Amino acid sequence: MAASLRLRGAASGLRYWACRRQQPAGARLAAVCSRSMASKTPVGFIGLGNMGNPMAKNLMKHGYPLIVYDVFPEACKEFQEAGEQVIIYAIRILGLESCLMVASAIVFGYVKLYEITDIPGRYRDGAAVERKATERRVKKGSLLIDSSTIDPAVSKELAKEVEKMGAVFMDAPVSGGVGAARSGNLTFMVGGVEEEFAAAQQLLGCMGSNVVYCGAVGTGQAAKICNNMLLAISMIGTSEAMNLGIRLGLDPKLLAKILNMSSGRCWSSDTYNPVPGVMDGVPSANNYQGGFGTTLMAKDLGLAQDSATSTKTPIFLGSVAHQIYRMMCAKGYSKKDFSAVFQFLREEESL
Amino acid sequence: MAASLRLRGAASGLRYWACRRQQPAGARLAAVCSRSMASKTPVGFIGLGNMGNPMAKNLMKHGYPLIVYDVFPEACKEFQEAGEQVIIYAIRILGLESCLMVASAIVFGYVKLYEITDIPGRYRDGAAVERKATERRVKKGSLLIDSSTIDPAVSKELAKEVEKMGAVFMDAPVSGGVGAARSGNLTFMVGGVEEEFAAAQQLLGCMGSNVVYCGAVGTGQAAKICNNMLLAISMIGTSEAMNLGIRLGLDPKLLAKILNMSSGRCWSSDTYNPVPGVMDGVPSANNYQGGFGTTLMAKDLGLAQDSATSTKTPIFLGSVAHQIYRMMCAKGYSKKDFSAVFQFLREEESL
Amino acid sequence: MAASLRLRGAASGLRYWACRRQQPAGARLAAVCSRSMASKTPVGFIGLGNMGNPMAKNLMKHGYPLIVYDVFPEACKEFQEAGEQVIIYAIRILGLESCLMVASAIVFGYVKLYEITDIPGRYRDGAAVERKATERRVKKGSLLIDSSTIDPAVSKELAKEVEKMGAVFMDAPVSGGVGAARSGNLTFMVGGVEEEFAAAQQLLGCMGSNVVYCGAVGTGQAAKICNNMLLAISMIGTSEAMNLGIRLGLDPKLLAKILNMSSGRCWSSDTYNPVPGVMDGVPSANNYQGGFGTTLMAKDLGLAQDSATSTKTPIFLGSVAHQIYRMMCAKGYSKKDFSAVFQFLREEESL
Amino acid sequence: MAASLRLRGAASGLRYWACRRQQPAGARLAAVCSRSMASKTPVGFIGLGNMGNPMAKNLMKHGYPLIVYDVFPEACKEFQEAGEQVIIYAIRILGLESCLMVASAIVFGYVKLYEITDIPGRYRDGAAVERKATERRVKKGSLLIDSSTIDPAVSKELAKEVEKMGAVFMDAPVSGGVGAARSGNLTFMVGGVEEEFAAAQQLLGCMGSNVVYCGAVGTGQAAKICNNMLLAISMIGTSEAMNLGIRLGLDPKLLAKILNMSSGRCWSSDTYNPVPGVMDGVPSANNYQGGFGTTLMAKDLGLAQDSATSTKTPIFLGSVAHQIYRMMCAKGYSKKDFSAVFQFLREEESL
Repeated sequence: MAASLRLRGAASGLRYWACRRQQPAGARLAAVCSRSMASKTPVGFIGLGNMGNPMAKNLMKHGYPLIVYDVFPEACKEFQEAGEQVIIYAIRILGLESCLMVASAIVFGYVKLYEITDIPGRYRDGAAVERKATERRVKKGSLLIDSSTIDPAVSKELAKEVEKMGAVFMDAPVSGGVGAARSGNLTFMVGGVEEEFAAAQQLLGCMGSNVVYCGAVGTGQAAKICNNMLLAISMIGTSEAMNLGIRLGLDPKLLAKILNMSSGRCWSSDTYNPVPGVMDGVPSANNYQGGFGTTLMAKDLGLAQDSATSTKTPIFLGSVAHQIYRMMCAKGYSKKDFSAVFQFLREEESL
Repeated sequence: MAASLRLRGAASGLRYWACRRQQPAGARLAAVCSRSMASKTPVGFIGLGNMGNPMAKNLMKHGYPLIVYDVFPEACKEFQEAGEQVIIYAIRILGLESCLMVASAIVFGYVKLYEITDIPGRYRDGAAVERKATERRVKKGSLLIDSSTIDPAVSKELAKEVEKMGAVFMDAPVSGGVGAARSGNLTFMVGGVEEEFAAAQQLLGCMGSNVVYCGAVGTGQAAKICNNMLLAISMIGTSEAMNLGIRLGLDPKLLAKILNMSSGRCWSSDTYNPVPGVMDGVPSANNYQGGFGTTLMAKDLGLAQDSATSTKTPIFLGSVAHQIYRMMCAKGYSKKDFSAVFQFLREEESL
Repeated sequence: MAASLRLRGAASGLRYWACRRQQPAGARLAAVCSRSMASKTPVGFIGLGNMGNPMAKNLMKHGYPLIVYDVFPEACKEFQEAGEQVIIYAIRILGLESCLMVASAIVFGYVKLYEITDIPGRYRDGAAVERKATERRVKKGSLLIDSSTIDPAVSKELAKEVEKMGAVFMDAPVSGGVGAARSGNLTFMVGGVEEEFAAAQQLLGCMGSNVVYCGAVGTGQAAKICNNMLLAISMIGTSEAMNLGIRLGLDPKLLAKILNMSSGRCWSSDTYNPVPGVMDGVPSANNYQGGFGTTLMAKDLGLAQDSATSTKTPIFLGSVAHQIYRMMCAKGYSKKDFSAVFQFLREEESL
Repeated sequence: MAASLRLRGAASGLRYWACRRQQPAGARLAAVCSRSMASKTPVGFIGLGNMGNPMAKNLMKHGYPLIVYDVFPEACKEFQEAGEQVIIYAIRILGLESCLMVASAIVFGYVKLYEITDIPGRYRDGAAVERKATERRVKKGSLLIDSSTIDPAVSKELAKEVEKMGAVFMDAPVSGGVGAARSGNLTFMVGGVEEEFAAAQQLLGCMGSNVVYCGAVGTGQAAKICNNMLLAISMIGTSEAMNLGIRLGLDPKLLAKILNMSSGRCWSSDTYNPVPGVMDGVPSANNYQGGFGTTLMAKDLGLAQDSATSTKTPIFLGSVAHQIYRMMCAKGYSKKDFSAVFQFLREEESL
């Protein structure tokens, strides 16, 4: 089945949706399309924010015609100006509906699939189950890949809904930040029916260096959530250990060196050290600007918490980590990189 | 000063004590000593347990005559049988006193320095400050290196006491387990006066591949405690993440692979994975036998907790990790490797 | 509107649903009804478990004809045998549909409203949002009171659905256990439109000594969840303090006395002490049998956790308490009273 | 022995020390002493701060001549001006030495016994075991009662030292704040040899309404520490529950009312509610001024942590509570009442 897929690419900031076995995308589309792209199915890309923008560009570089969409029209402009290389459905003319029905792949930046499509889902922020009266439809036979990080249980729901419409759903959240998005070195963790993985891999490979098949729908999310929970725990642990060591008289650089040659070594200590002055080129060297925001980490830990509660899994450190990041959001750290937890633990107000 | 030191080696399971600038160790000693060793000062080694035994052997391999001592006389036998290569002061004849006064280096296995020498110190278990009436004396000019893991504050006290006796004290706790002790690849974190470090390095280098100078007395302990706290946090974090992932439908090996290529990577996930079946040659592959015992981890976390309380350092995850290992000790895990926390979190009694 | 309500009572183990302004319940019903009850509208009561059974009986004592239902038919038998005092719609004949359409009040024991009615809702245990194809309808003008403990966000959803059917929904979870259910001394925390509260109070007052209006729909649940979270925290806190005191040499009874005359005093220490031998007539005096099960506490803490995550509220102790009860469920304590956390913390396996 | 005690009273802000069976306090003392007091042995009172000042005054009211001392001479002035009713040893003239040797009772405000007397002890803040060269001596046969909150293990050490000097030591920490100190309604938890308790009770009864014998030396401290740990846990729990409830739409006053009639009820919810506007006359009604300082709570939780570590007692919530108060101290809450944890959890910086 995947073998018969003519689509060559489709990427996903958050989700993508490739129309498979579909007819040529219609006269208007064909007219704009350059020859070199004739053989590739256009890929829709929805959500062109910090992550989605560079991801979409990497798809372009691999020769995929794009149909871009973003709730902020300005975000599409840069792509429109790229001329023939990108097939732009003017948003005012075709709108989101057409994008969903025509494009062979859509990358959802940070816009949630169910927000776009009205497929029912639980809104994490509002906690409410929403159902809009009119549901948008997706093209039959299309392959939809959701690259946002959401509750695995919601991924399963979405998969059922998409299946009812005759399409296929896969979850493929990413690891790696804006830098990896730009260099095309993201890691995608993919959940879905195994025979569709080859098709997904073809597209995701344009944007990431690792595309890992995780199992049934939802397992991509599961892998992402587990990784980020461990990341948060390691980062706080590194911050606590570094802070304690400094107060006990150790030089931070030296302590980092020791940890990194010992059993305390972790990504947060050897690649993304949270203590200013220990490493260059990381957020802690730049007042915790850039990187992976505290708010986003708090969100992911909320998802981990939900999944743990649902599956009755004890997560002692995971849940305390969740509270710490929650607290940081309330105390002015929401926009800083999540490694600012070192600063949060260390900083004392002048009294 | 260190340059004038004639001693060439002296190792430390827990602590070592090198007599510097001392006279030849007396007639009896000289008589037993082989020629090839004439130029090296004998090293005392106290404490010949799981760690001390291989450490002492590595000192022997580097040509150091040893004066061994252990509260269990049988532990010395193996060394006695090594004949000329080891200079054995028959314990029954000379006893501990002589060992302390004659040997140029003593490795304290897991016997505490203050237990041996009656130097006052806080007993962690009893929390009481003890002072025995008669204090054993140590040789003037000797260099004492303590390789056990204790409260940095106690190291500082010990250093003062040792200084009063005209000797020098350094703390040099180790990282790396029995395997590293055997292969001579331990990491030593050394605290003490900088000009004495060269002498310490000469000895510790026989037993470890990394000998790191950390700063003033107590900073070796500080580095060790910080590392082990981070280790405990990472191990529990890895166990929580792996357990959650498994319950969400992920294959453990696959999940470990994903974590190890992502930001969740840590020593506990990539070198010492706690989930049975994921890695070979680690305690989790052998029912959590061997390795670093849960009791010892609980002890080290107690030290971290004490240090954090003293220095008013918040350690949210460190203190919860402490409670978890404390709990495990009470629930039958005390003799298992500390990676058994995965089993503790996962295991359900059949009800 | 509430004034025109002819219904006099309707109770709720978990939820109740009073049909207001309805026609006499039909010929068959009328025929069984005794004269003394002619003036009171029959009340449906669904869910006749440990809580529902005594609650329903208290409604009967106040003269309300009952229409009982339970997934286990045997649970209804006791009521059928009560003869004329209870109006039983034979389950085989009328079934649940009739119960919902005819009775003026239904008490839902521990059966969830949305399980009964197919109103969509999130199942806490499965985390999935379910929608059954055919939705049962409820009588227009009826008042439905839900006495189960669920996520306040779900209560709000349910209220919307019920409103669409032309009925009114209130949440009214209970505090107090089986004992209070028997003696009619439950506390009901009621959320819903204020003008309907008088009607609810009339019914709930038959089963509880405190019927508190909390505010809009969902606030009853909110109050319940907050209380139970604080209860869990206090219970664990009491257990930790009692255990620590005992290990420091204090007599448990004496320590309890001191706490209860000091600022550590709480319901868990002065009314429900978790240490065997301190109080009589509490679960700790009876091997933690009876009382409020550990599983239920774990469930309620899961709801608190969900609500806190949704509202971005930091709950450090609440989330650790959640993990502890989660852990206890896995370690053989699920059926014991939640005060068994003392035993969990204290008990050491013989090694 | 206690029967032969002529001393009638002696109180203790932190510690008190009654000289028993002593000779009349010397010529100078006698000269100042009024007739009405001739029959009562003078009581030394050291430490006249917020707690010590009203405690000493209550002793005066019961007719005890006082010998007061404070590191700040001004603190004694008020007592000097009280004229004949108080026997003042001019600090400049007699100094601390005389106070210790002559007075029959000394109340130590917040000055540590071992700071005053050079009895060795562990300084919590520095974590170091200190021994000063010259030790001050205490009168033989005197009864010393320590009312400060310290590590029970240190109390035991102090008791041994005092015993060596031929005196008797009891620990008697207090519960109840400044208000209770003024009204003479403190609770004293007393540890020491049982036959000396009657003597202690006589004195402490002047300052407290509850004087409870707890057992051997150190158990008074143990009881205090356990109470305060439970208090901290309940206070944080109350704050989390109130904050969650408010965010879920509940009125704070109503929620407090519900908690207080339910199983969540505790001293922190019904007597010392941390939410502004819920109660009058508590620190939360006065911007968290007065009351029991956050720093002191952090200190007591550190003691609980130490005791738990020493006795290998798991205290999950106690240790997290410790970290929270530690954090608050660093974030500007150190001088506020400990109920300000509500504000800490709730307050959001304007971003």
